[in-house]
Amino acid sequence: MDPILVEVTRGDRVESAHRGAATVIDASGSVVFQAGGIDTAIFPRSAVKSLQALPLVETGAAARLGLTEAEIALACSSHNGEEAHVAAAASMLAKAGRDSSCLECGTHWPSNDAATRRLAASGGAPSALHNNCSGKHSGFVCLACDRGDDPKGYISPDHPTMRAVTAALSEMTGTVLDARNRGTDGCSIPTFAIPLRALATGFARFGTGNGMAPDRAAAAKTIRAAVAANPFMVAGTGRLDTKLMAALGARVFCKGGAEGVFCASIPELGYGIAVKCDDGAGRAAQVAGAALVERLLQSGGDSAAAVAELARPAITNWNGIRVGEMRPTAALG
Amino acid sequence: MDPILVEVTRGDRVESAHRGAATVIDASGSVVFQAGGIDTAIFPRSAVKSLQALPLVETGAAARLGLTEAEIALACSSHNGEEAHVAAAASMLAKAGRDSSCLECGTHWPSNDAATRRLAASGGAPSALHNNCSGKHSGFVCLACDRGDDPKGYISPDHPTMRAVTAALSEMTGTVLDARNRGTDGCSIPTFAIPLRALATGFARFGTGNGMAPDRAAAAKTIRAAVAANPFMVAGTGRLDTKLMAALGARVFCKGGAEGVFCASIPELGYGIAVKCDDGAGRAAQVAGAALVERLLQSGGDSAAAVAELARPAITNWNGIRVGEMRPTAALG
Repeated sequence: MDPILVEVTRGDRVESAHRGAATVIDASGSVVFQAGGIDTAIFPRSAVKSLQALPLVETGAAARLGLTEAEIALACSSHNGEEAHVAAAASMLAKAGRDSSCLECGTHWPSNDAATRRLAASGGAPSALHNNCSGKHSGFVCLACDRGDDPKGYISPDHPTMRAVTAALSEMTGTVLDARNRGTDGCSIPTFAIPLRALATGFARFGTGNGMAPDRAAAAKTIRAAVAANPFMVAGTGRLDTKLMAALGARVFCKGGAEGVFCASIPELGYGIAVKCDDGAGRAAQVAGAALVERLLQSGGDSAAAVAELARPAITNWNGIRVGEMRPTAALG
Repeated sequence: MDPILVEVTRGDRVESAHRGAATVIDASGSVVFQAGGIDTAIFPRSAVKSLQALPLVETGAAARLGLTEAEIALACSSHNGEEAHVAAAASMLAKAGRDSSCLECGTHWPSNDAATRRLAASGGAPSALHNNCSGKHSGFVCLACDRGDDPKGYISPDHPTMRAVTAALSEMTGTVLDARNRGTDGCSIPTFAIPLRALATGFARFGTGNGMAPDRAAAAKTIRAAVAANPFMVAGTGRLDTKLMAALGARVFCKGGAEGVFCASIPELGYGIAVKCDDGAGRAAQVAGAALVERLLQSGGDSAAAVAELARPAITNWNGIRVGEMRPTAALG
């Protein structure tokens, strides 16, 4: 039974509570911290986009196509569909000689409500570029074109480009990824069930380069620097990943995933972090992740205040009255 | 430890799982079914709006003001902010000689995404009428005006109108409601922590009239008929409460509440139902509620298919591919 990681209060009562598992692991695979079961395979969903972006950079494709740091950050993103995100995805595709017609992620209105309202007010309609995964998909298209693969069908597990992406994820997490642990993600690419222990180990490696070939270690460093310089591009207005990295810069790399997943690297400590809320609640994964980062990575001043607010967010109502809060429990250390 | 009530699958794996408590109780207070702990007080939030609407009807205020059935249904609603909802709230206030300026619920864009986009595309902006609680608040204003109370400050626990509303909730659930079990709801009115056992008993009474004064029993019947005739008004496009009552008509009255609450009456069986998901997940409360209704209330044909779809909804991705489902567990009987 996983412990309660996060409580949601209203007045002086706990209104709801989120169970889950979390771990901090160093690049040698040693467990620094553990709460709950970390050997059950879970779908990391979008939390591993940075690992899936490694082939784009380590092969030299990103450099050959002239992708900017902002575009590399977008390749790791679950973005809000704000104007800058959409423009960057379109730019990536143009650099590969393609356009949005080759994206296979599906179309939805921007995740950010204000961006949706702006698009609607302008008489516009969403395209695949607004899909929160369009940066990742544009990265796949760039990789395919650079490799000389026909990008058509790149979302299939058997497409050569997707095989390269999956191989990187497999190697980073030390996990065999095949049809037995495969599901289909919201954007139609494969997602593979991987234990938190392996995910955290992969993120310890991603943050340090330890246990990685030189080209891949260099690619991880490039990706971390690109995201640290462009935290808006990995998520957007109001989002935890953007706020946490804006507050801490290159001291942390983090990425949430659907159904309550949070993964992070803390390069200066050599640690990787992985969290899964049993119930799939993103709000709780974010609080748990921020609380672990806050505890492990001492900071001061404005950064400390920003991180503290993410680890213990107030709940306010439609009149702006504070009615409760979310808070990490003692199970998080 | 509450059991897992609902599982969320992806491929052939359980990706997330929701624990919670649920009960079915008859109007005498006898437990017909129980899963998990039903004596812990939980905030029912919007699930008790129908009980809070009883004074509006039982005092004759609704009849004197000429409220329609659709407007009475809206007084029990957490609506989508679609055009018909907004118009009905404005009409209720006009019948009381008031307008939206006296609503104290706060303002937000419509809960329904398409309604938000229509409002944005028209160059409009939301008012308090778009707040999902505006029907309930308009009912409070109608009650206050009919009673001769100044509606100003009606959201306060100590306002005479709110005292009358709270008294009805207290009597229906047989629970003392005071500052010790009080929190503040999203729309700024008090919400009181009440055990599932008491909530389900209250809804058994609401569905049968048993244990209620004649005027209140008649008011409950009026409210149930009003909602059965206008299921769109209690929620709106795509929403579970609307779909379940559209499928089953007057055979069920149901209402969800924030943070994973579901309450229902099944008049023909004399049962009340109450569900709380520990983690606050509305998606799971809806599946659990629909599953209990499906099990208790045999139906055939299109109704059965509609209810089955609510109790076991498919999860599809942005390309329309079925990637998983939500399903009730054996803990729900």
